[in-house]
Order: sequence, then structure tokens, then C-alpha cells
Amino acid sequence: MKSRKLLMIPGPIEFEPEVLSALGKPTTSHVAPNFIQSFGNALRMMKEVWFAPSGQPFIMAGTGTLAMDMAGSNLIERGDKVLVISTGYFGLRYADLLLRYGAEVTFLQAELGDVVPLDMIEDELKKGAYKLLTFTHVDTSTAVMVDPKSIGALAQKYNVLSVLDGVCSVAGEEIRQEEWGIDVVLTASQKAIGVPPGLALMVVSEKAMNVWKKRKTPVANYYSDWANWLPIMQAYEAGNPSYFGTPAVNLVMALEKSLEIILAEGMDARFARHQLMAKAFREALKAMGLKSIPINEAVSAATLSAPYYPKGITGGQLLAQVNNEGVILAGGLLPEIKGDYFRIGHMGSINRADTLATISAIEVSLKKGGYVFEDGAGVKAAQMVLNANSYIEKR
Amino acid sequence: MKSRKLLMIPGPIEFEPEVLSALGKPTTSHVAPNFIQSFGNALRMMKEVWFAPSGQPFIMAGTGTLAMDMAGSNLIERGDKVLVISTGYFGLRYADLLLRYGAEVTFLQAELGDVVPLDMIEDELKKGAYKLLTFTHVDTSTAVMVDPKSIGALAQKYNVLSVLDGVCSVAGEEIRQEEWGIDVVLTASQKAIGVPPGLALMVVSEKAMNVWKKRKTPVANYYSDWANWLPIMQAYEAGNPSYFGTPAVNLVMALEKSLEIILAEGMDARFARHQLMAKAFREALKAMGLKSIPINEAVSAATLSAPYYPKGITGGQLLAQVNNEGVILAGGLLPEIKGDYFRIGHMGSINRADTLATISAIEVSLKKGGYVFEDGAGVKAAQMVLNANSYIEKR
Amino acid sequence: MKSRKLLMIPGPIEFEPEVLSALGKPTTSHVAPNFIQSFGNALRMMKEVWFAPSGQPFIMAGTGTLAMDMAGSNLIERGDKVLVISTGYFGLRYADLLLRYGAEVTFLQAELGDVVPLDMIEDELKKGAYKLLTFTHVDTSTAVMVDPKSIGALAQKYNVLSVLDGVCSVAGEEIRQEEWGIDVVLTASQKAIGVPPGLALMVVSEKAMNVWKKRKTPVANYYSDWANWLPIMQAYEAGNPSYFGTPAVNLVMALEKSLEIILAEGMDARFARHQLMAKAFREALKAMGLKSIPINEAVSAATLSAPYYPKGITGGQLLAQVNNEGVILAGGLLPEIKGDYFRIGHMGSINRADTLATISAIEVSLKKGGYVFEDGAGVKAAQMVLNANSYIEKR
Amino acid sequence: MKSRKLLMIPGPIEFEPEVLSALGKPTTSHVAPNFIQSFGNALRMMKEVWFAPSGQPFIMAGTGTLAMDMAGSNLIERGDKVLVISTGYFGLRYADLLLRYGAEVTFLQAELGDVVPLDMIEDELKKGAYKLLTFTHVDTSTAVMVDPKSIGALAQKYNVLSVLDGVCSVAGEEIRQEEWGIDVVLTASQKAIGVPPGLALMVVSEKAMNVWKKRKTPVANYYSDWANWLPIMQAYEAGNPSYFGTPAVNLVMALEKSLEIILAEGMDARFARHQLMAKAFREALKAMGLKSIPINEAVSAATLSAPYYPKGITGGQLLAQVNNEGVILAGGLLPEIKGDYFRIGHMGSINRADTLATISAIEVSLKKGGYVFEDGAGVKAAQMVLNANSYIEKR
Repeated sequence: MKSRKLLMIPGPIEFEPEVLSALGKPTTSHVAPNFIQSFGNALRMMKEVWFAPSGQPFIMAGTGTLAMDMAGSNLIERGDKVLVISTGYFGLRYADLLLRYGAEVTFLQAELGDVVPLDMIEDELKKGAYKLLTFTHVDTSTAVMVDPKSIGALAQKYNVLSVLDGVCSVAGEEIRQEEWGIDVVLTASQKAIGVPPGLALMVVSEKAMNVWKKRKTPVANYYSDWANWLPIMQAYEAGNPSYFGTPAVNLVMALEKSLEIILAEGMDARFARHQLMAKAFREALKAMGLKSIPINEAVSAATLSAPYYPKGITGGQLLAQVNNEGVILAGGLLPEIKGDYFRIGHMGSINRADTLATISAIEVSLKKGGYVFEDGAGVKAAQMVLNANSYIEKR
Repeated sequence: MKSRKLLMIPGPIEFEPEVLSALGKPTTSHVAPNFIQSFGNALRMMKEVWFAPSGQPFIMAGTGTLAMDMAGSNLIERGDKVLVISTGYFGLRYADLLLRYGAEVTFLQAELGDVVPLDMIEDELKKGAYKLLTFTHVDTSTAVMVDPKSIGALAQKYNVLSVLDGVCSVAGEEIRQEEWGIDVVLTASQKAIGVPPGLALMVVSEKAMNVWKKRKTPVANYYSDWANWLPIMQAYEAGNPSYFGTPAVNLVMALEKSLEIILAEGMDARFARHQLMAKAFREALKAMGLKSIPINEAVSAATLSAPYYPKGITGGQLLAQVNNEGVILAGGLLPEIKGDYFRIGHMGSINRADTLATISAIEVSLKKGGYVFEDGAGVKAAQMVLNANSYIEKR
Repeated sequence: MKSRKLLMIPGPIEFEPEVLSALGKPTTSHVAPNFIQSFGNALRMMKEVWFAPSGQPFIMAGTGTLAMDMAGSNLIERGDKVLVISTGYFGLRYADLLLRYGAEVTFLQAELGDVVPLDMIEDELKKGAYKLLTFTHVDTSTAVMVDPKSIGALAQKYNVLSVLDGVCSVAGEEIRQEEWGIDVVLTASQKAIGVPPGLALMVVSEKAMNVWKKRKTPVANYYSDWANWLPIMQAYEAGNPSYFGTPAVNLVMALEKSLEIILAEGMDARFARHQLMAKAFREALKAMGLKSIPINEAVSAATLSAPYYPKGITGGQLLAQVNNEGVILAGGLLPEIKGDYFRIGHMGSINRADTLATISAIEVSLKKGGYVFEDGAGVKAAQMVLNANSYIEKR
Repeated sequence: MKSRKLLMIPGPIEFEPEVLSALGKPTTSHVAPNFIQSFGNALRMMKEVWFAPSGQPFIMAGTGTLAMDMAGSNLIERGDKVLVISTGYFGLRYADLLLRYGAEVTFLQAELGDVVPLDMIEDELKKGAYKLLTFTHVDTSTAVMVDPKSIGALAQKYNVLSVLDGVCSVAGEEIRQEEWGIDVVLTASQKAIGVPPGLALMVVSEKAMNVWKKRKTPVANYYSDWANWLPIMQAYEAGNPSYFGTPAVNLVMALEKSLEIILAEGMDARFARHQLMAKAFREALKAMGLKSIPINEAVSAATLSAPYYPKGITGGQLLAQVNNEGVILAGGLLPEIKGDYFRIGHMGSINRADTLATISAIEVSLKKGGYVFEDGAGVKAAQMVLNANSYIEKR
């Protein structure tokens, strides 16, 4: 057996060996020519991965929440009106965060497993005076995916800044930031972007940077203040060293490597691969008789699945058995139904081997738990998806 | 996708990350206390893995052929009679090698896909005067496995030294060297023992060491001469440094780590896992309508499979497509039927993920090649084996 | 030659291979048992390294500035009076940061190369009503070291919370947080603590935590708010998983390894080694006729040196030549005299080899630049220090 | 302190991090396109490093002794006359080895610390009928270096094949195989070639290959027989896969990397660096009053030093103390004077830091042992050499 288990949670994920190898290399000076180039490369490649050629990328030591904080604290002044569109746990966090900075938050919560209807969002925007709206592309707690293109279009129609929490989607789900008119797309390194945790990442539109430049009050959060970091990002992208705080050199080197791998695959191929694997998971889960939180395929994420336990099977039992079979899955996260469902991350370097191994481990574990279904149904259903829609794996 | 492909050939195999990490550590002195201990540990653990508590282990920089050479050149003197029992390519090599050292070789070649019948071996041994017999546990060219226990018993009955070429079997197939009375069991590091290529390994019985000690002529091969290396192995096992040639420090450190992983799993669990995965492969290949070289299950290796291409599918096409799907397989090796079959290595760290991914890639590729069979049949058959006979994967 | 140059700047420094190896290992789940244990170990070991057994440790993804921000934003409410004691660049930053959170800052700036006299600090504290004082242990811009024990005692005498910016000192200079009564000691990973950049670290006294608990207003910085992170730190230390943001798994594993190495050396031995190497540098620089910013030995850091260029030698020329000779040094950082001096980091894993190599490279480069002094004087002076005060290097 | 000690023995040496990183990478198939290219690159670069553009390179899993065996067993037939020129331990080994293959060996032993005079060699060659002569470039046991150019010329004059044992010299001492007319130059990976132990390397002249092709008897050693390996080396160099034994994939990848580093430095620069560091060692040892085995500079190796212990200092004491100071040195190897001297390896990646750290550790240890000499004299003498003859360290 492989002595290490397969990590199939919605982040951290299985990282490419080359990314880990870059991470473990001897650290160079943060002002050494090779690092300046790597930092610059990473910034430039982010704009390609985000489809935001004229955006301003930021790479910060921190978590995804720092990315949310940075977007929120820089764009909001006390009293600004914000519309928070929520499909789970992380919408609530964004509301909580924005309140801290003095925003007047209106909170639109979707039904469990569904998205907030577009007309409900538009109705709210019509009421006017919103400065900003935030929405979660894929909520890690529910596997529900919203359609950023339509929401971005609405935001533009009503001249509201839009912030997409792409923590569980960037580099896995299709995003075309600039074309879709989204002002901030933020993420964390340990998800589909494929780098161990520790980096907060975002690209900001020119429009949003201009709104920030015209603030009347200082940014409430010193560490997050773009005024500290914008000159650094600009300097590194221009090939010059600069200093505010020491960048996380090794993580940035790892990010450069991962972005190279992402772009070498090609964004469209990468989106297609995520779609294919997600479909294999969906079909396999269905074939084994498991239901999922997202109410239909249109609102199902490509990056993770959130199936309910079948009758008679408890989470403690199933996840422990799956772990024994060599695969690590995550339990539920949404407080009200935490014990009713589990989560499978399938993003980043996800491939045929990971997919089938995970389904196989779930299948064996369900059987052992006494749950009855057709022998081999899960992997067979997945394989039929793969047979019909093969992708090219590339070195 | 994982940027690296899955290496499913019969050696080198996929190695454990911890083994690779041990390999890449800074080299210590070959006479440093930590290395003396690691070398001693490796020697001691080899005796456990080989089930040969009173055997003499050797760890040498070299290939599997060096291990064959060392056993042959130390145990044979000019004019000695040797019986070579062959199930493929590597039996022929052993004959070739022994002739070089002046042996009189009798060569028993099995029918393709079968083993040499025991009574035929016994008939030959009865003719008498044999000093040594050699046999290949699993011939890497045919996936045929012989039964070492019976042949070992025959060798003992006729008081003939026995040399088991375990290159493709040690730590994958069951071997109980001492209980089964086999005098030399040799292998190479890059197979089921789980260490990158570069080490020749063997354990020699007391009886064989005594025969060697009573040689009348010097060993023809200077480098292989046990007289050079025996004091070194004894010194390191006793915790003392010693020098004849500089040991391959990093590979020995990696070997120590791999033997630790092997013993932590447990030999019986390891044999069972290899059996289980081999059965999953066999059932999957059968379900897809593919025939294999070994004529029945009793002579089928647990460490590799050797299926024929189905009608209408050529090797160049299939292996290239499987490679595109992310898995590397090996072509045929036996000259006379080289283009008719391929080989899948499934040994060492082989697990559920590797097994299903490989079968899935073969399935997709056969479909793309136009070969018709039930959709999903391969992975389903494999999964049914796994459902019925699950093993515990351990960290 | 070694293909990699010696990194002798005041952070990032040369890291132990075992720390880099821990960093590059496959990432585990942030709620996996092994990670929970590692995170807990790191928190517990921090308290040993900080000499703060009853303190509350925090490990955060971020830079040293985040650590400064977290201490400041959690302990300050709008209108609080803070005394900032500055010996260089980073004192100014702390003032800037505290102003953002509404503090009324009094700024005591030392003369260049000297510390602020204790009686001047006491005079200021007597004026009363200070809630907090901050001071920089070693200012990275000047190599000036203050005496934290005396300042800690003053803070206690006047019942003022004290925050020590130990970014360039923790694990290099002697600090006994609890004995000396300092409320917060903060640092960043990439300095003497020996871990690649990306972690902000601090230990907070019970007293300071209590002050925080009694805040009347919410913490202005959402990301930094201890309310988010305290339960996480407590859970991991107690052996339970918990989630607010995904911890920087690999950096935390590397931190655990580095803290193990630090404690295996022993804190007193570690302080003594830093003292010895610093003395070797001071004597070598003196022997070559170079003056340094710190006005005397008592205010000289053990972790870095800041010598002036000798007459006729410019920075661009010297640092480029030293770089050619294989050693990377840092230029000046203090804006007003940036071009007049350079900086040598000598902390963390600093040893005899690094010390002599650096001095040798400076010596050769000065000679090549035409600066005249006794041949070999630098390394000889350093060696005389080492001869007189050897330390034990341990594996 | 660095937790790892500096390894300053005459092999294994300190290896470049990039070489270790290449070694620890996931193993690829021995017939994968990337490995075929790497193997081919290594073979081609060997010819550049050896200065033998029309030579035939061999890369084998094994030790330096295998390289000696391969050259000896392939070029010698029973009854051939061989002249062995010896400057220490390894000359004796070659004689021993050649006798095994039936050579008639004449053994010329140099005085301790000196080389065999050229006229004595010529006198012997005049006696005629020699097929082969062997000589050790640098004997690892004595640090004595012979002049291969003159001996190569003599061999050509008398039409005798010449085999240079370059185990302790290739890539450290100047060798121009083809220009100097030497037929075999052999080495092991773990010395100046800079790769962890496990590879035997050699380049063979066309003339020697032709002599081998015209053998009348088979090569006595099966494993070493060029007939097995020549087609493999030719195939890989031509970009085709081929199989006799599985090559040591990871070590070959590490060799490719190390040869790249060697050629990037440039052979002349590399020779000059070795000369410079050796001179620094010699001057330092002299300044501390230590004598060395080689009787003068002309016969002193650039790759290692072999100083006698001064009066009153024993080896056990000094080497243990130096080890405590963080540096690992080797004791004597020549049986008759084993306890009288020690050995310092300074080859491969040897740089300023290693050199000064080693001298410094010896100096401190001698002082502690009570040996009296001018304080700082060793490092000062070394630095004066470096000041006068600086080299450029390159990334």
C-alpha cells in the first residue's frame, strides 16, 4: 500500500510533487534577482489564470479569510451598503467581516442546496445605494455553485462593485473576471490553485482600485491596507525589489510552479477536466443511491461533492472506514445538518486515479456498513463517464 | 491532472515518498555512526523480509544481474553441473552467465505460460551430480510464477544447492527462505522491495556459505567475490565500520526506510495485498475479454500481469493511448511474441488507486481503439474483488 | 564551488536542511491527527523558547508586520495612550500602525546607534496614563539592541502593558518573557526562529489577554482579532481540531522541526553561540578597520552587524564583489544613511563555516576594492575569538 | 549551529543541493524519453569532463572497484603482462585484482610520499612485452599525486595500454585523456564528480576498445563484460532505449545534474579552484606547523591533504575534537602508518566556507589538545592565499 493516504477534502488537496519540491528548496533572498523574477512571474500568471489582463494581482502571506478581509476593508468605508449573497457558511462569514468595518449589510440567504434567484438579487439591487455585493462562487460547506457571470452582469447594470469569493473555485471552475466584469476575485492557495496553505490571492479591477484610491477615510485594517502592498506588487511585477514585509519566499516559488503547471494544461482543458471528474463523482454517487445537497446539476460545483449519508449509515462510521481504506474525506460543515452529509474535494490535480480510488473506497465502506446496492455500481458509473468523455493527461 | 504519470511497469515502480525523501537526504560518511546503524538495520531487516534468520545478507551497488552473478560466481567452480529451470527470458540469462564461469549447464525450459513440471525436474535431479539448481520465481518476461517451496524441497532431497532468482518477487510473493530450504534468494532494489534501482540484494544460507568456503579455486569474478564483501557485511551488522568499497550510502538509507515500511505493514498483510490486487487485475482483464500468458491462476504472478492484445488492437496504439491517459505500461519482452502482449507491474506500494486507474486507462484506450466490450466492465470486476476482499490501508 | 551562495542577510537566513525537508513534505489535512499533534507541539515549544510557560502562543499565516498588527489592534482601543520606543526603522512602523487604530502615540527616538536612556523612558512613563509601550529588541535597520529586562521592569513598575518586537531577536538574543514581565513578545519565522517566511508568531501574557477580554469596543481588524484565533490555538494545544482559517500546514510542520532543533541545542547554548559568532564578527570588522552603527558592545546585537563602508569603498561595489565571492549581504535600510553602511545577518543556524566564509569574502572584496589593511587580519581576529571561546557543534 | 556536520573526508563529499534534489525525484521508467535523454546527456558530458571526445563512456551501478575490475577484466587475458605503478593502498588493490584475471603483474611501489621516478617506469617498460600499465592519479591513502601526462606519454612510446585510476581525481585534478593518450580513465561518483556513491564511471579510448574486440578468450567477469554494456551505452547515447540491466535511474539523473554544474563552472575554473583551496590548506597546515605525507608540492594532490599529527596529539583525540567542532575528517588508511596521520578531503563543491571552517576547527582542536602555535595562524595563512588568488563563485 502507499503509506500515505489520499487527501480528498476540499483543501488542502493533493499537491503536485514539483510544487512541493519548489516549496522545499533553499530559500533565497526576497530581493535576489531570481526571486524578483519568480514573484513577477507569479503575478503575471495570476492575471492569465483569472482572465484579468488589466487587473491588479496581490499575493499575501495569510489565509483565504485575509483575502476576504483585504477586499472588504479596502473597499468599504463606514456606512457603505453591501449586499451579501450567501449559499452557505462562508457568506455568513463575509457578512460578519463587513459589519466589523462598518458596512450596512443586507443578507440574501439561498435555500439549502440552491442559489439565490437572480430576480431576487436584482430586486434588492434596485432598491439602490449599494456600493458592493459579495458572493461565494462555490460554498465549501454545501458544494453549491452560483453563476458568477449573471451576478457580475447584474452588478455592472446597477453599478455596484462585485467581490467573488473564489476560495473553492479559482483554477477549478470557469471564471473570466474581466469579461464578466467582476471587480475582485479572491482565493487561497490550498484549493484548486494547488499550493500548500499560507497564501491569500486576489486580482482587483481597475475600477475597484480607483474606488479605493478615492476613499475618504483610512483603511481600518493596517496589515490589509493596499497602500502598504500595492507598491510592492507593482515593483516586483516591474522587476524591482521592494520591501514592506518579507514575502513568503518559498510559498511564492511554489505558486510560480503551480501556475506554470496550470497554464501548461490550459485553462479550458483544466475546466473540462474538473467537469469530467465532477460528473464521474455525481454519476457514481447516484449509482450507489446517494443524494447530494445541490438540488440539481446546474448548481453543482465541479470542485467538490456533498452527498448525504444513506439510511442506516452514520458519518463517524463511514468516514473512519473510508480512512481505513486509504482515503481521507471531510465531514459536514454546515452547523444545522453537520451530521447528515460528507464532503469530497475533487479539485486541482484531481485525476482518474484519485477519482476511482475514492469512489472505490466509499463503495467498499458502504458495503461493509451493511448498505445494499449493486456490486461495483459506483466505479462502473464513473468509468462510463470516463469512457464517454476521456481527457488527455499530460506530463 | 497529476503532472506525473503512473509508472506501472515491472520495475522501476512507484516508490513511497518517504523512500525518495531518504534517498535525497545529505549523504553521511560511510563510517559515521548513523550510517553504520542504518546499514546494520537494513541487513537485519532483510533477514526478516526473506524469512531467513540465520542467512547471510549482502547489499551491493549493482543491478539484479550482479546479484545473479555473485551467487553464480561464488558457488560455481569450473566443471560443476548446474540445472537451470527457466520460465522465460531470465532463465536463459542465468544459463549464459553460469557458462561463463565454467559450469556444465542443463537447461529445462517450460512451455510458454506454464512452469516446468516437478517430475521433470526430479527426473533430471535423479541423474545426479548436480551441485546447484537455479530457478526464477516470477519471470518478468512472462508473469509466470513457479512454486519455490516444492522446488526447494526437491533440491534438498537431492542435496543440490538452490538459487532463487527473486528479482520480480521478493517482498511481493510469499517466500520463506529458511523454512523452504532455499540457499540463495536474490533480488534487485527497484522491484517489490521498493527502492530506486542500484542495489543488488541477496541472502545466502549457512550451507551455501560453507560450500563457498571450501572452494578449491578462487572466485573468477573479483568484484563479486564474497571474500571481499563478507567481512564488510559482518562488520556493519555488528555495528563496526569497515571498508572495501564505498557503500551506496543514500540507496542504503532508502533501503532501510523501505524495509521499515514493509515490516510495518507485515509480511502476511503484504502478500495478501499483492494477491488481492493481482486478482483485481486478472478479473478486470478477463471481464474485458483479454487473455494472459500464464495458463492458469496457479502459475500467475501476484507482482505483474502479461495480457495479450485483443484482436484488432496493436501494441504501439494501445500503449501510446494508455500513456496519453496517464499510465505507463511495458511492452512484451519475450523475443518470439514481443508484439503480441504487454506487461503491467503491480507490486511494492501498489494500491487501490493505482489498480483502478490502470484498469480504467486500459478500458478507455481499448474503447478508443474500437475494441467492443461491456462499458465499465473492467473497473466493475476489479471493484467486486475489492468489495469481497478488502484490505486495510495503513498510514 | 557550491552552486548556491551563502545567504547572510538579516532574514530570510540559511535554514536547516531538515526544516526545508519538513516544509516540502506532502501536506496533510489540517484536522488530521498527526497535524493536530504537530501544531500542538509547536505551540508548546514556543512557550519554552519564549520562557513563557503560562503565556498564550499564536501561530498565524502572515509576516512580522501582522504580528505587530495583531498585538497592536487587539490591545489598543481608540484613544489609548502608547509609548513607542524606537531605535530605527521598525519603531516608526509601530507608531504608524498604532495610529491607525486610534492610539495616542508618544514617540521616543534613540540617537543613531544608541538606545533611549532608561531614565528618559521612566520620565515619560511617570507622566502617566500609558496603557502600552512598545520597543524593538534589535532593530534590523541599525543592529542596535536594547535591554528588554530593564524596560520590562519599568513597564511593570508603571503598570503599562509591554510589547517587545522581537522579530530580529527571538531565539537569537536572550529573552525570558515571563521572568522579565513582558506582555507580548512577537516575531516572524524567517529570522532566528529558522523557518522560511510566512508565519507571524507571538506569545501573550495572561495579563494582556485579560486586558483584551475587557475591551469595550470590538477589535478594529477582523483578521487579527484574537476572538477568531484564540479558540483555534487552544483547541490545537488541547489536541482537538478546530477551524477558523486553514493553518499554513507545511510551514507549521517546518516550525515544529525548527523548534525541536532549537530546544535540542538548548536555549543557553544557543544564546552563547550567537554571542560568540557576533563577537567574532565584531573583532573581525574592527581588525579590518571598519566601524559599526551601534556605539558600543552593550548595545550591539548578537543577530546582525551593521558596519560602515570604509573610506573609498562604495556599497554597490563592495556588495557586488562579496556576492561574486559567494556571499549575499544586505545594504543599509535606514533612509538617511542608506548608502553609508551594510548589514550582515548572523542568526539561527549561523556557525563557524558561515562566519569565516563571510568575513573572508568581505576581506577579499575590500582588498580588491583597494582598501589597505593587514593581510588576513579579519579571519585571524575571528579565529582568535573562536579559539578562546569554542562552542560545541552538535548533530 | 547547523545541525549537520561538514563532511570533509575524501569521499563521500558534500554534494550540491541540486544534485541531492535530482536524486530524490520520483523515478521514471528506464525507457522513458526523459530518462533516455538524461542518460545520453550524462554520457556526452562525461566525454567533455574527461576531455575525451572520441572515447567510449560507461556508467554502471557499482563502486570504484567495479570500475577498476571492468577495465582490468576486459583488457586482460590470462598471461598478459601488466605494470602496476603504486603510490599507496589502491595500487596494491589493482595488482590483487589483475592477478585474479591471470595477469603477470610487475609492481612498482613508490617511496612513501613520493611518486615512482619516470626513468624507473621507463626502464621497466623497456624490458618489453607489457600489454597494460595502471597507475593511481591521486592515491586516497597518501594524497600523493602522479603526473598522468608523462606516464601517458611513456605508455604510448612503448605501445602499452594505460589505465588511470582517477577515483580521487577526475573533475578535481587536471586530466586531458585524449590529448595525453591515456586509454582508460576511471572513477567513482562520490568523489570530485559530486554524486552520492553507487556509480562506477569510465571513458575508454578507441584503441583500448579495439584491443578488447580482438580478445581471444571471453571476459572472465560476466557482469563487467563490455559486451553486455557497450550496446546499452551506444543506444542511450543515440537516443534509443535498450536493456541489459536496469540502470540506476536516480543516480544517473543526479549525475546529469552534477555534470551540468561541473561544465557550467568550466573545467579550467574548476581545476583552478581545486588548486587554490588545496594551496590554502597546505599553507594553513604549514602555518600551524603540521607536516604532510607528500614530500613536496609537485606531488601533492589538489583533492585531499594528508597531514601528520603534531607531537603530543593523537588521532583519536584530534579527530573527535574536530568532530565536536562540527567537521568530519578521516583517519589514516595506509596500514603501516595508520595512526600517524589524518586525511582532509577538499574536492567537488569545496569552497571558501568549507575550507576556512575546516581549518578553523583543526586550529581550535589543536589548541584544546595543548599544541602550541601562533593564535589564528592557520586561517590567516589560508586567507592570504585567498586574498592573493581569489576565484569567482558562481550560482
